[in-house]
Amino acid sequence: MSKETRWLDDQEQQLWRTLREFLWQFPSAMDRQLSRDSAMQSGEYSVLAALSEAGGPLRPATLAGELVWDRSRLSHLLRRMENKGLVLRCTDTEDGRGQLVSLTDEGWQAIRSAAPAHVTFIRQSIFDHLDDTEREMLERVLHRVLGSVRDASAATNANC
Amino acid sequence: MSKETRWLDDQEQQLWRTLREFLWQFPSAMDRQLSRDSAMQSGEYSVLAALSEAGGPLRPATLAGELVWDRSRLSHLLRRMENKGLVLRCTDTEDGRGQLVSLTDEGWQAIRSAAPAHVTFIRQSIFDHLDDTEREMLERVLHRVLGSVRDASAATNANC
Repeated sequence: MSKETRWLDDQEQQLWRTLREFLWQFPSAMDRQLSRDSAMQSGEYSVLAALSEAGGPLRPATLAGELVWDRSRLSHLLRRMENKGLVLRCTDTEDGRGQLVSLTDEGWQAIRSAAPAHVTFIRQSIFDHLDDTEREMLERVLHRVLGSVRDASAATNANC
Repeated sequence: MSKETRWLDDQEQQLWRTLREFLWQFPSAMDRQLSRDSAMQSGEYSVLAALSEAGGPLRPATLAGELVWDRSRLSHLLRRMENKGLVLRCTDTEDGRGQLVSLTDEGWQAIRSAAPAHVTFIRQSIFDHLDDTEREMLERVLHRVLGSVRDASAATNANC
């Protein structure tokens, strides 16, 4: 192995195990909650929530940016949600070429009825365990981590 | 919507967006790194790392516990890794019924050659951004969150 590798010490190993468990367990728990309480996948919830928060139609690119997803993941999901009658895709009359995505009445009803149980789950599993100092620290730390992940990803793309 | 729902305030919304981005972006970045540098999936890396850290064969149940995975996810991956020649499954001679999983020479070689770049990625994207206080706080906070996720999951299973 390379001499230069700075291996993790015991405390770092411990945090890395905890973090991996969080990355694996938390999204599964969120999926279980949404599937049990609202017969919905977490991706669908995210799309419905983003459209309802925007308060009106959004371009797919804006929606993808809002969700920090790649376009192909979003397109695939939008097709499925359109088939289920939750969203509509129509031509953007202002520019004539682009598309706009909007919520149908069913989509509005789905997010309205799913939101209370989902927000309660997020509050009880995350926010009830954080005081103000911890919340600010977590925000700060995750911002730095995401900045570094974005830089690494940009470097990979530049080498493609 | 229910009157009792305690909706997220602006600061909480902000942290929730950051956290969702982390939950989505970080595992993808980790997969990209392993795939680019070692032609390996992150699940395979986790299995190889757990077996190499154990220093000898493990029962599938112990390995699943170590990784905090469900047994079906692990079985599926072990079959694929056995086909690739990275692990071996054999009968546990001590109890005669159970199985043991061990690394093949190829498995050892795969983890030895993948580890330096992967640990460097983890260090550069996570640990280089944390001071001691932040690391301890993150560990404490994630432990509480995981405890609450485990409780919710136990309650769901009890109702099945």
